[in-house]
Amino acid sequence: MRKYRLMSPGPTPVPEKVLLKMADTMIHHRTPQFQAVLKDVHVKLKKVFMTENPVVIFASSGTGAMEASVVNLLAKGDKALVIRGGKFGERFAEICEAYGIETVPYDVVWGEAPDPAQVAGLLKSDPKIKAVYSTLCETSTGVVADIKGIGKAVSGTGAVLVVDAISGLSADEFRPDEWGVDVVVSGSQKGLMLPPGLAFLTVSPKAQKLAERSDLPKYYFNLKAALKAHGKDDTPWTPAVSLIMGLDSVLDMMLEEGLDNILARHARLADATREAVKAMGLEIFAKSPSNAVTSVKVPEGVDGKALVKKMRDEQGVTIAGGQGDLKGRIFRIAHLGYMDEYDTITAVAGVEMVLSQLGHKLQLGKGVAKAQEILK
Amino acid sequence: MRKYRLMSPGPTPVPEKVLLKMADTMIHHRTPQFQAVLKDVHVKLKKVFMTENPVVIFASSGTGAMEASVVNLLAKGDKALVIRGGKFGERFAEICEAYGIETVPYDVVWGEAPDPAQVAGLLKSDPKIKAVYSTLCETSTGVVADIKGIGKAVSGTGAVLVVDAISGLSADEFRPDEWGVDVVVSGSQKGLMLPPGLAFLTVSPKAQKLAERSDLPKYYFNLKAALKAHGKDDTPWTPAVSLIMGLDSVLDMMLEEGLDNILARHARLADATREAVKAMGLEIFAKSPSNAVTSVKVPEGVDGKALVKKMRDEQGVTIAGGQGDLKGRIFRIAHLGYMDEYDTITAVAGVEMVLSQLGHKLQLGKGVAKAQEILK
Repeated sequence: MRKYRLMSPGPTPVPEKVLLKMADTMIHHRTPQFQAVLKDVHVKLKKVFMTENPVVIFASSGTGAMEASVVNLLAKGDKALVIRGGKFGERFAEICEAYGIETVPYDVVWGEAPDPAQVAGLLKSDPKIKAVYSTLCETSTGVVADIKGIGKAVSGTGAVLVVDAISGLSADEFRPDEWGVDVVVSGSQKGLMLPPGLAFLTVSPKAQKLAERSDLPKYYFNLKAALKAHGKDDTPWTPAVSLIMGLDSVLDMMLEEGLDNILARHARLADATREAVKAMGLEIFAKSPSNAVTSVKVPEGVDGKALVKKMRDEQGVTIAGGQGDLKGRIFRIAHLGYMDEYDTITAVAGVEMVLSQLGHKLQLGKGVAKAQEILK
Repeated sequence: MRKYRLMSPGPTPVPEKVLLKMADTMIHHRTPQFQAVLKDVHVKLKKVFMTENPVVIFASSGTGAMEASVVNLLAKGDKALVIRGGKFGERFAEICEAYGIETVPYDVVWGEAPDPAQVAGLLKSDPKIKAVYSTLCETSTGVVADIKGIGKAVSGTGAVLVVDAISGLSADEFRPDEWGVDVVVSGSQKGLMLPPGLAFLTVSPKAQKLAERSDLPKYYFNLKAALKAHGKDDTPWTPAVSLIMGLDSVLDMMLEEGLDNILARHARLADATREAVKAMGLEIFAKSPSNAVTSVKVPEGVDGKALVKKMRDEQGVTIAGGQGDLKGRIFRIAHLGYMDEYDTITAVAGVEMVLSQLGHKLQLGKGVAKAQEILK
């Protein structure tokens, strides 16, 4: 017997009562019954996303909403400033390129955070830049960006700020309206504690205005159609009904805990993990670490891929390895969503045991004790 | 106490054991554990789609796969022949137009079936036509198209045949490989008995070749990326894990029943419904009726919208009304997926009772008796 423990930065564990809510009788989506659910969900999503802007739901993974934030905001001849400090920043650039939008890349060394002053400078240099794309938490590196600072750099200009908060939402502090964020992209399988399959997009009035002149082709991810339906608590295409029933339930849980409490919980678990890992003699990879996921350098002499594999296949604890150039060089422990103190202690204990099995010299329990000290 | 009975042409009821399968512990998608599931699913999908071609899965509703069948197959300057005999035929044309593809429309009177000879004629007249878009069952009218005949018209030419089998799959006879169908589009919430949120696309070698020269922009629905991942039993973006776990279970159920048995069951239920409705003195709307859904003309003097509303809100039986111009003029009873004889009897009994409540003169039980006679 070995329990399955999901501690990767998405998908994340789904609370049992939400799993059961999604297992309820399937209902039809074009009925007053479902419309009432959607109406409720639309109100609660604004609270959880901390925005007054509409939060549109797509039946897709997060990448779909990333695409929506490109094809609906930009027009032929526009340029996009894309902050690339990891795999997901790069994805924004790939989407722009797929639609013929020239990107002005701001390449940040993986593991470091973007500098708002650089964003301001690049923006000034090219008036064709109509949108700035950033991640909140760059999941691939565990870095949280200074969105407040970037927001200041963008808000005075004609460009809109689009933030991929797929893994950062409800884990890292994020006040989109206050900080001048026009569009927030997110997904269901991270802090929102649901299975993958829903993506979200918030749209400020400034972004809606920009979208009016967009002439890039789109259909499934057409924002105008989505917003029109949203206004009637409806969807343009068949929605992912069971996931939306789960969303309804999960949003209640989140509002009951309170968003500031959720952020504080993520901060506590992340802090405990970082300090525990340091106590074990390991090094944090991210210079500006996110509270969604902690990225840790694999110590010299240890096979990073074997570490992740043994954790998963022998201990039942699914953490994540590195992506791209970081494969084998880092491992990542998430604190996202349905996670508490004992999940953090489990992750730390597992890493200690497996590192020890792999021949790395360390004192078992040192990391765990450090985590306990912080969490007690 | 009133049970909820879903008898609309999608979403359809989900078997209880499948609901529970989807409520199991969430697992990570980039693991050998999930890869093994996906490998199995890929093999079983081919059997259920009755094709040797790969069946690609998207996390989206069916419209997403319809879009994929346009943006991946066509190139700038190509034309598309679109059979428009209902709402979903029209959707193919809208997608083509959104991507700047000129359509050659073949407009069929709603309720009638397209004529393969007309397709052959239109194809001959314009060599720029690179794809023909048809529905198997046009859900909005309940018409099944003669895809075998259309396949013959298309297969000798340079064009590919794309069939929207979203509601028709596993309900109407359909042999894509035998009949010269290159691309089949489908969705999860119909004959596949799952919640909405998954879409499917099969691709013949001829279609893959055509796709190679496609220069329309795409990213989320990029077929090349999807096929490359499919070859490794993987997905380019995060898949809808819980729905795929359900898919695994549903495909087992379908293969256990046997596809020919499933088709025969749908044919029996549809036949019983049609004959029962005629015995009640009502008229079938579709000239060439599908076994997925039966469309019935609302008798004169009866408020069609009230009929559907009373069935749903008072009887707990969700059937569908008409769409577009057919609003209030027809009602539709589905036979799709997880349905048996007693569901059909329930639908017929409910329609009789509500028509009677609405002041329509009929002999209660006449339709039910006719259905029993056929189903006994």
